[in-house]
Amino acid sequence: MEALGRQARESAARMAAASTAQKNSALLALARRLRESVAALTAANARDLAAAGALDAAMRDRLVLSEKVIATVAEGCEQLAAMPDPVGEISGLRRRPSGISVGQMRVPLGVFGMIYESRPNVTIEAASLAIKSGNACILRGGSEAIHSNLALAALVQAALQEAGLPAEAVQLVATTDRAAVGALITMPAHVDVIIPRGGKGLIERISAEARVPVIKHLDGNCHCYVDAEVEPELALRVVMNAKTQKYSPCNATESLLVHAEQAPDFLPRIGVLLAARGVEMRGCPRTLALLGPLPDARLAAASEADWSTEYLAPIISIKVVDSLDEAIAHINRYGSHHTDAILTTNHPNAMRFLREVDSASVMVNASTRFADGFEYGLGAEIGISTDKFHARGPVGLEGLTSLKWIVLGQGEVRG
Amino acid sequence: MEALGRQARESAARMAAASTAQKNSALLALARRLRESVAALTAANARDLAAAGALDAAMRDRLVLSEKVIATVAEGCEQLAAMPDPVGEISGLRRRPSGISVGQMRVPLGVFGMIYESRPNVTIEAASLAIKSGNACILRGGSEAIHSNLALAALVQAALQEAGLPAEAVQLVATTDRAAVGALITMPAHVDVIIPRGGKGLIERISAEARVPVIKHLDGNCHCYVDAEVEPELALRVVMNAKTQKYSPCNATESLLVHAEQAPDFLPRIGVLLAARGVEMRGCPRTLALLGPLPDARLAAASEADWSTEYLAPIISIKVVDSLDEAIAHINRYGSHHTDAILTTNHPNAMRFLREVDSASVMVNASTRFADGFEYGLGAEIGISTDKFHARGPVGLEGLTSLKWIVLGQGEVRG
Repeated sequence: MEALGRQARESAARMAAASTAQKNSALLALARRLRESVAALTAANARDLAAAGALDAAMRDRLVLSEKVIATVAEGCEQLAAMPDPVGEISGLRRRPSGISVGQMRVPLGVFGMIYESRPNVTIEAASLAIKSGNACILRGGSEAIHSNLALAALVQAALQEAGLPAEAVQLVATTDRAAVGALITMPAHVDVIIPRGGKGLIERISAEARVPVIKHLDGNCHCYVDAEVEPELALRVVMNAKTQKYSPCNATESLLVHAEQAPDFLPRIGVLLAARGVEMRGCPRTLALLGPLPDARLAAASEADWSTEYLAPIISIKVVDSLDEAIAHINRYGSHHTDAILTTNHPNAMRFLREVDSASVMVNASTRFADGFEYGLGAEIGISTDKFHARGPVGLEGLTSLKWIVLGQGEVRG
Repeated sequence: MEALGRQARESAARMAAASTAQKNSALLALARRLRESVAALTAANARDLAAAGALDAAMRDRLVLSEKVIATVAEGCEQLAAMPDPVGEISGLRRRPSGISVGQMRVPLGVFGMIYESRPNVTIEAASLAIKSGNACILRGGSEAIHSNLALAALVQAALQEAGLPAEAVQLVATTDRAAVGALITMPAHVDVIIPRGGKGLIERISAEARVPVIKHLDGNCHCYVDAEVEPELALRVVMNAKTQKYSPCNATESLLVHAEQAPDFLPRIGVLLAARGVEMRGCPRTLALLGPLPDARLAAASEADWSTEYLAPIISIKVVDSLDEAIAHINRYGSHHTDAILTTNHPNAMRFLREVDSASVMVNASTRFADGFEYGLGAEIGISTDKFHARGPVGLEGLTSLKWIVLGQGEVRG
């Protein structure tokens, strides 16, 4: 791991100095090589799938590197090549009274370590984001995908060399030894940031043991708040989408807050729709009183723990609140600072919600399901951060860069 | 400490929602109260000075809270009040194909912990930056300044209350028990970032033990590189200022690199000037050969360790390099990524130096001594970061904020 780290650090300097044209040509070469290598890649993937006989269907599904998955990641590389280069952008260059001009230049972070499970396509997503952002990276995929990942990483390295860039800018940890992870997250001299993607257990363990910064994603306990003044059809449509369009994503809504003035009308209507989709409702006493008469609804009393729970399932917690203040306080206390939305026609309330809800994404009259790098226009996302430091929410190319200060003078000295 | 943390977290929510007018009136009230309290403050400070009998002169100097120091921090509060509010700024709001508009809003980080030694004026600098940036903070000053700090913190809390803001937004740890520091840096639920200011030992210990992000400043091994094409008078003036204007600041130059084509002219000239100021020169063999004939110069052969050394003293290491590439490679290898300058008339070389030197501040034709929050126009600085993550170089109000995503919709849902 020490050798990998040293090579990554050396390559990072060359990647930082690479031209936009070189980086884009590496991305296009990678896309071409991916499309040309469908047979070899699916053969390598077949070895992983054969070894993974005992996996459940969902995990097997994540492991599959089909022609369609390959086409999608190849297209992702081409989209990244078409995006503006974040590196070298100079902002805020202003003259100071001393005569010097001071501004900031966007530069790569250096080396990032990526630790992930199952999905081999993450290998290409991480590699392509590293190339475009001028970083080097060390990739540690799951042991169950090792043959797929080795085949993909070989294509990345060939594409880098084809473009005149160092192959070691993207290195895959070839061993499935778990000690490698421990080494990767404790090399501040060689690794600037760790990005884990996987279950909460993995992420908590890495955060606890890392000796370098971690861009991490923990819970997604997202809320929709239906304000006193609201367009009911809009609110019904958005809440249903936020909760039921997909149950498993982290940006799906888990908790519904409804203003007391709106609750008598809104709750019975949303209750019918949720019941029809088989969604279990766990409500506060006032919610239960309003939803009680609904036929076929699975109703239960919400416990204190429900307000903090990310179900990732057809279950929703529901609470009637007496004010916007109570809604904001509830979200800031029980939420996970991921994504929360207000449904309202009241402008001051919309602005207060935007300012005062302390979450990575805060929305007005839109589904929480939009919290996503692609929907936000980042092109691709390396991860989602639930922290406030450095990067918040979906992390794209900019999250892999930092701003250094630049000073342009004509011989000025300090007096 | 747990209670302090909880109160800070609660106050942070109120500070984040505070209006610009409220925050500015708290700052102006603080400035007024500082000026009105000179007698009480100097009396409290006298108790600290009396207890500190055994301190050396430099440490005693740092501990003094004179009328002049009080006037300076009061003026700093007024300057902060006059600056634009960083909180609430919305940037990049753009419409996406889905119909939603996506942008970013600048918001306070939440709660920061400040750990510092000696200088009681840091209490006011940290408190005023917290107020303006809408954060809460917990301050842990040195035990030798406890009476001064308690008196200052009481003024801050009175000013906060006068402006209708929570007094607990700025809390001073009243105990001088060292275990308090250990608790402060391991409360991720209540503290979002730790900013230590003090000796390298303190900062390394805090970084090693903290369970929250640390904005830290380690070495300042700064370089001036004199390129092949250069205006000699300009280069002499800047290098002399960068090295000798003050020896103790972290942004003073410690190492001089000179292109081989320029060395035969430049080195003897700068050698005379440095010798006249009593600066010891530790050179590579080529440097020694060129400087050897100088009378009265204290010359020595540089060891490998010299290239990495921050002297903070009238000593400079000097190396002749054969190319810009060698200069950049030397700086990135031996430097501390703090502040480095090129002296050149060659535009492509200036631009390459700006892009490729991996330091928090990179300068062309200006003294490294300019790397400072005030000189950069930040108004005040809470610290200087030698890290790349989140904030680099001088950290002002913006470094105490983060960007959250905001989404404005008209009922859009995800398909």
